Amino acid sequence: MVKVGIVGVGTVGVSVVKNLEKNREIIKSRAGKEIKVIKGVVRDPSKKRDVNIELVTDYKEVTRDPQIDIVVELMGGVDKAYEVVKDALNHGKAVVTANKALLAYHRFELQKIANTPFEYEASVAGGIPVIKALRDGLSANHIEEIKGIINGTCNYILTEMKKGRDYEEVLKEAQEKGYAEADPTFDVGGFDAAHKLLILASIAYNIDAKPEEILIEGIENINLTDIEFAKEFGYEIKLLGIAKKIGNEIELRVHPTLIKKEEMIAKVDGVMNAVSVIGDVVGETMYYGPGAGGDATASAVISDIIEIARGCIKPMLGFKIPLELDNVTLKPIDEIESKYYLRVAVNDEVGVLEKIAHILAKNNISIESFLQKPRNGYVKLLFSTHKCKEKEIKKAIKEIQELSFVLKPINYIRIEE
Amino acid sequence: MVKVGIVGVGTVGVSVVKNLEKNREIIKSRAGKEIKVIKGVVRDPSKKRDVNIELVTDYKEVTRDPQIDIVVELMGGVDKAYEVVKDALNHGKAVVTANKALLAYHRFELQKIANTPFEYEASVAGGIPVIKALRDGLSANHIEEIKGIINGTCNYILTEMKKGRDYEEVLKEAQEKGYAEADPTFDVGGFDAAHKLLILASIAYNIDAKPEEILIEGIENINLTDIEFAKEFGYEIKLLGIAKKIGNEIELRVHPTLIKKEEMIAKVDGVMNAVSVIGDVVGETMYYGPGAGGDATASAVISDIIEIARGCIKPMLGFKIPLELDNVTLKPIDEIESKYYLRVAVNDEVGVLEKIAHILAKNNISIESFLQKPRNGYVKLLFSTHKCKEKEIKKAIKEIQELSFVLKPINYIRIEE
Repeated sequence: MVKVGIVGVGTVGVSVVKNLEKNREIIKSRAGKEIKVIKGVVRDPSKKRDVNIELVTDYKEVTRDPQIDIVVELMGGVDKAYEVVKDALNHGKAVVTANKALLAYHRFELQKIANTPFEYEASVAGGIPVIKALRDGLSANHIEEIKGIINGTCNYILTEMKKGRDYEEVLKEAQEKGYAEADPTFDVGGFDAAHKLLILASIAYNIDAKPEEILIEGIENINLTDIEFAKEFGYEIKLLGIAKKIGNEIELRVHPTLIKKEEMIAKVDGVMNAVSVIGDVVGETMYYGPGAGGDATASAVISDIIEIARGCIKPMLGFKIPLELDNVTLKPIDEIESKYYLRVAVNDEVGVLEKIAHILAKNNISIESFLQKPRNGYVKLLFSTHKCKEKEIKKAIKEIQELSFVLKPINYIRIEE
Repeated sequence: MVKVGIVGVGTVGVSVVKNLEKNREIIKSRAGKEIKVIKGVVRDPSKKRDVNIELVTDYKEVTRDPQIDIVVELMGGVDKAYEVVKDALNHGKAVVTANKALLAYHRFELQKIANTPFEYEASVAGGIPVIKALRDGLSANHIEEIKGIINGTCNYILTEMKKGRDYEEVLKEAQEKGYAEADPTFDVGGFDAAHKLLILASIAYNIDAKPEEILIEGIENINLTDIEFAKEFGYEIKLLGIAKKIGNEIELRVHPTLIKKEEMIAKVDGVMNAVSVIGDVVGETMYYGPGAGGDATASAVISDIIEIARGCIKPMLGFKIPLELDNVTLKPIDEIESKYYLRVAVNDEVGVLEKIAHILAKNNISIESFLQKPRNGYVKLLFSTHKCKEKEIKKAIKEIQELSFVLKPINYIRIEE
């Protein structure tokens, strides 16, 4: 029998216990052993929980219990979870976690310490086995690109806005439905997606980057004009986590993105997640499913427990021998190249277009398409550019913003095609 | 170093050798060891091949070579491949295969013999790691349903027909492009998809069924009227491999299917494959990518080689302890329940509709929707039914076909919703 201790028995923890019980026969058959949760660590043991396991408040009663084989970390947060997980590894326990923030900050240190299996399928894209796909299924490939819809909150909001609904209105509904937190910043600001992207990028490229080092922009500035532009020009707007290898540089970024509606990933709506990966041997594969939720996450956690029970030890981030990546670096944000969509609200005056076009040309930015729409008392100018550098577009936007006839903050969305 | 012998060095075999060489550094890093193909078995060593390995004609020079660790079977076909693979297993070699036909007929016997790793990611859905997803990623779940677009030839043809193109015309183009064989029956008749479905069903349910025991229908009778009906009523037509567990019965079937266009799998076009799986814990996940092609298949073959090199031994079909499935049986074809679409061409006469409606009612079949379209000199009647049994619809179709005013063979397509 494989004995499991869970640190943090919330929604996911309860679902893990329940589903291990509900599906125990088929799980035993697949794992080759019985799997049982024997202890849980919680802050408040008196709180009503729908499970019948021994509850303690000191994590060491799990991480140092000689009976326990696998420690499942479901606390969330970074520092305390790091302390708990290190203690488990230092006492010879295998670890399963769903904690994307922990891994965003400490995955390489944990890989160094771990002499036992360390699995984290549940940390990216919920119930979709994307970690196994990338690390084990696509191991023959150099990964050229990863594009992920890996935050269900953002995808839900953007999907609802396509129906002509206002951002603020949809956010409120998302909060009521439990798809967004009271303080939604972590999701709508792109930070949650960034944590997950870093995990995927490490498996693809063995690169250790922190959230603070990469470009992160959320969906808070998307409005219905942008949605209409997308529809008119055959795009969808999605918050994407993007990883690319260009020469010896790895580009990592999270931001709203215009993608052609024919792209498979453009067809993913609502709270669902999807990760598209382009490998140099296989081409494009995509993985779709529920990115969050107690049961979806529990499915991933339990699949990791079963793998460990089967005796399968994987190199944590996929590399048994560290890859010689001395010459692979994180691309500086300023050097990232992309096509951009710009939304500029201006007074209806003579010379507006000439002045804006002059600034773009001066900064080496070439216009691909242009749409001018009159509004009540002002004019909306919608541009899409050819590829240019982040630093060039930032400079151009700053200069255009300073023109006297520009009425509102300029919005921009990167275009991937 | 892990030494590999390939039996059958065709398109996929050449791609395996080339990509193992091209990506050797990153593969070595991920596997923890160098991987080298040292020998290949071919019928004609003098034939020009784009690889530089020792070629022999007797497979025993690979299956019994003490230097070789892994035998990769890429011959295709059933009987000879079975002989080769058994010999490899009996001489302690690990085996990697892409051979769906071999597994359709012999997977359970091979599981019994195998004391060494036996992997077959490439046998279903080409480069998409769907075997790993189903066997390892979704192992916490009871599988409720699998729906797969697992034959690129059929999906390509059906996609092109949506543009108003004729079946025969598209088939001819598919053959010219290499998407269909000179004798296309194995693909367009649904047999290739059936082999793959059986493999997936064994992992999900531990069920041993043969191709001859399951319902297999191809796309040869689909015409533009069906395509138009689908479009009008919000469906797509796809050739699906379907596996379902209903009580203690497993339903296995391959046939053209009308599915709602909002379904994720309905959005998969062209030669691409996709497998949708519904698990009781996680819900629906879907896996998308190239289902065929030398490089896509090689990516899957090499990923299996890397897993074996990493020292990971999985239970071949996913069950370490055989599941107690004494009471799980294959549902007889006659008992399968489905909704149906029927296309009936009739003379424009009095009493036609009444007689047809009478036959349907007599056979316990209830009409859900109905469309009557006049054509040149005759009338097309298009029905969709509520759920009924296969035996009931077959009897009703036979009786309707015998009516004097029915002009052409009746076509029917099952509806999944």
